Amino acid sequence: MKQILIQFLSNFSELTQTQVNEMADLMKVATFKKNSSIVKEGDYCTSCYFVLKGCLRQYIIQDGIEKTIAIYTENQSINYFISEDIQTKAENNLICIEDSTILVGNPKSDAQLFSKFPMLVDITRRMIEADLNTAQKNISTLITSSPEQRYKHLLEERPDLIQRVPQHIIASFLGITPESLSRIRKRIATVNK
Amino acid sequence: MKQILIQFLSNFSELTQTQVNEMADLMKVATFKKNSSIVKEGDYCTSCYFVLKGCLRQYIIQDGIEKTIAIYTENQSINYFISEDIQTKAENNLICIEDSTILVGNPKSDAQLFSKFPMLVDITRRMIEADLNTAQKNISTLITSSPEQRYKHLLEERPDLIQRVPQHIIASFLGITPESLSRIRKRIATVNK
Repeated sequence: MKQILIQFLSNFSELTQTQVNEMADLMKVATFKKNSSIVKEGDYCTSCYFVLKGCLRQYIIQDGIEKTIAIYTENQSINYFISEDIQTKAENNLICIEDSTILVGNPKSDAQLFSKFPMLVDITRRMIEADLNTAQKNISTLITSSPEQRYKHLLEERPDLIQRVPQHIIASFLGITPESLSRIRKRIATVNK
Repeated sequence: MKQILIQFLSNFSELTQTQVNEMADLMKVATFKKNSSIVKEGDYCTSCYFVLKGCLRQYIIQDGIEKTIAIYTENQSINYFISEDIQTKAENNLICIEDSTILVGNPKSDAQLFSKFPMLVDITRRMIEADLNTAQKNISTLITSSPEQRYKHLLEERPDLIQRVPQHIIASFLGITPESLSRIRKRIATVNK
């Protein structure tokens, strides 16, 4: 289990192997079986997550229907806003689509790690910056694209999701019905023939 | 001009007044007149921005039509992905809606500031984390809400925008025509009577 974390940390050329091993010892890694619920809407936010292996999704329930708002795979962070001053409640649910191995952090453990390994602060900052860049691109796509364009964008940007995630979840993530997604897929298949 | 920056930095209780003044001397602040173009699609990304005062928007041009993908006001950062390894091109345009005072940074100036003031790394990380949280909430709203719900959400979350930003830009930001926005506004006004 720790081996996946060590492999991941070894990607950062600024870390020595000794540092990687020491960090891995201090970090908390958890494994979850497929369909495990990790966060429920209304829970107090206590942790943030980083996917080392697996696939998870966030959803909200609106008028009795599950609406998928994010799908995460390897090397993506799943942020919940944790404030030191006020207790915040999760506004969505987090569940595993596959068996998943996840790095679990919280402000206290982060502070301990940052104090022992100051270079981690900057590594974390750069990773969050990349996540923010991705989120802003997603916003741009959501504002400017039709469901069909969004599906094509997903095919280009995250082709693995189409294989790993059930179609009804992909449809929900695109904000359309499974039937509409099926029509879009047929249309694209016909054009590409 | 620097006074706005000093005021902003003074909000961080972990910084002494001497540090605030020294930082302000090293940071680059620029002012732009209303309608100034700051970034053009296809430009090489060289800087990131943080709004000290004013209002700006990002848009793309799609089939000859401007589509607003983000509106920024005070205390929001405007990120462009700048990699040390490859030159990246801006995928959108950035223009001032109002006269604006902006903090301008780049990886080199950031590195100098971070090395002189290590506590800034963590302050920056927390600010980007809050931006990411906001971006993820926006994604959730975009996936799960109708244009009318998104307009109501905007009224709640960023009521100042309704006053500061021309209606056709608000409409574009909601992904609807100005006529549809006008109908939504009338409907809400009738319900609230």
